Amino acid sequence: MRILRRIDEVRQFVSQAHQAGHRVGLVPTMGYLHAGHLSLIHRIRTHADSVIATIFVNPTQFGPGEDLDAYPRDEEGDLEKARAAGCDAVFLPTVDAMYPRGSETRIRPGPMANQLCGGRRPGHFEGVCTVVLKLFHLTRCDVACFGEKDFQQLAIIRRMVKDLDLSVDVLSGPIVREDDGLAMSSRNVYLDAPERAQAPILRRALLKAEALWSDGERDPNVLGQCVRTCLSEASLAKIDYIEVCDANSLHPWDGECAGVTVIAIAVFFGHTRLIDNCELGTESRTS
Amino acid sequence: MRILRRIDEVRQFVSQAHQAGHRVGLVPTMGYLHAGHLSLIHRIRTHADSVIATIFVNPTQFGPGEDLDAYPRDEEGDLEKARAAGCDAVFLPTVDAMYPRGSETRIRPGPMANQLCGGRRPGHFEGVCTVVLKLFHLTRCDVACFGEKDFQQLAIIRRMVKDLDLSVDVLSGPIVREDDGLAMSSRNVYLDAPERAQAPILRRALLKAEALWSDGERDPNVLGQCVRTCLSEASLAKIDYIEVCDANSLHPWDGECAGVTVIAIAVFFGHTRLIDNCELGTESRTS
Repeated sequence: MRILRRIDEVRQFVSQAHQAGHRVGLVPTMGYLHAGHLSLIHRIRTHADSVIATIFVNPTQFGPGEDLDAYPRDEEGDLEKARAAGCDAVFLPTVDAMYPRGSETRIRPGPMANQLCGGRRPGHFEGVCTVVLKLFHLTRCDVACFGEKDFQQLAIIRRMVKDLDLSVDVLSGPIVREDDGLAMSSRNVYLDAPERAQAPILRRALLKAEALWSDGERDPNVLGQCVRTCLSEASLAKIDYIEVCDANSLHPWDGECAGVTVIAIAVFFGHTRLIDNCELGTESRTS
Repeated sequence: MRILRRIDEVRQFVSQAHQAGHRVGLVPTMGYLHAGHLSLIHRIRTHADSVIATIFVNPTQFGPGEDLDAYPRDEEGDLEKARAAGCDAVFLPTVDAMYPRGSETRIRPGPMANQLCGGRRPGHFEGVCTVVLKLFHLTRCDVACFGEKDFQQLAIIRRMVKDLDLSVDVLSGPIVREDDGLAMSSRNVYLDAPERAQAPILRRALLKAEALWSDGERDPNVLGQCVRTCLSEASLAKIDYIEVCDANSLHPWDGECAGVTVIAIAVFFGHTRLIDNCELGTESRTS
């Protein structure tokens, strides 16, 4: 596995891969890899001949007061896991290489970025789109894979790829969970023992709403209230948002859920913000 | 010469060109081609094996009340000129193909876009960057060529290419002028006879400032005042702006001109807004 740190190194790796007729696959990460990330690497493996994972804690997607400096890092462990997962290369650029002095162009996602996490984290998805597009350009990837835990991110990136006419196939990987249902996240390491014990409530709350949906419930308020009631059982949980949305546009349903629906939630445990979601009605998806 | 109207047609043309080992060159235009555009096609010819010109009057770079609907068009004439200039293909997409329903991602250029023309035309360069990036992606071009008349546009596009890590060489072509010095522009057709007679004053004013510069003048106020005095001789000219800027950052000089300088001007004749510029001190350019 090649370890690439400089821009010219990644460009050269990609040139050689393309010259060899390889399809290049990209899995962008912020490192501190867990089984969720590794599942994306496994997933893209079947769609690409050369797989590049990137590890870059992207400063432009963190707001003031967020956890940029505290964000967990483990380069050595990450490289070992990436190698074991079958990556052909890992790209670990510096912040200065990605955002040299004078750099100022940004990608502005549309209204889709102003709700859910975007409403709470102004500029977050602008930072995400900018770094993802830069990585698309640097790796000239044919296919890229993102996790479904970051549902809004995935929707915004799919939108960007379409809107900007990129020739990149966007794949997604299902949420990978701990045995007790907590969605894997690099940020789970922030949780202390009591918080960690209560954190699986996110999954349980979503499963309750899913059961209601299965029984035919389509009122977004009832579904949302079901999640809220369940979450309120966890004494340490502070709800950031619960949204019952159109899974395509991410607009909250106005009236009955009229198509594929996502329930997206964000919950604080102390300073740690956890997100989770479930998609409902995919069995009737036509596209 | 191939005439491409659909997205899939341009993608196929480009795939075949790349398969043949061709370097693809792009000249994006809004049509109503004149000798300035054709000079860009000739210039790129020596850097590319397959040359694509695009003709697209891009609505996202026009503000409310601007001349989108009135913008001159001549598809038949354009195709004839492009063929004669040696284009391999012309791409003429529809607005719906470029901006289908739901399209919302935009490129946000940095502070460089807030001055000069950008200060007077809010959103203009966002629209320019968005369409240019889309065309870069659609044509997967190796090289692209833009006119130096749109000096700010050229600087912003070069910035975008750098900031977003695009692998596109950006070339520029010098301003092409009518015999009397008026910079060629598709918008010159808007001028009535008295306006057209006075319009070469832009070039004369810039030449006077250039002469001052040659004599050693480096005070941006003196250079700007020289242009202003000259322009005031034209009774129909209404100055929009006169700026004496750092040619790299486009920031107006604060104090003496300390490096390569551009004098950029915009002048109304009736409703028609003409721009022109001159670059000074390029003989000392180091990069």
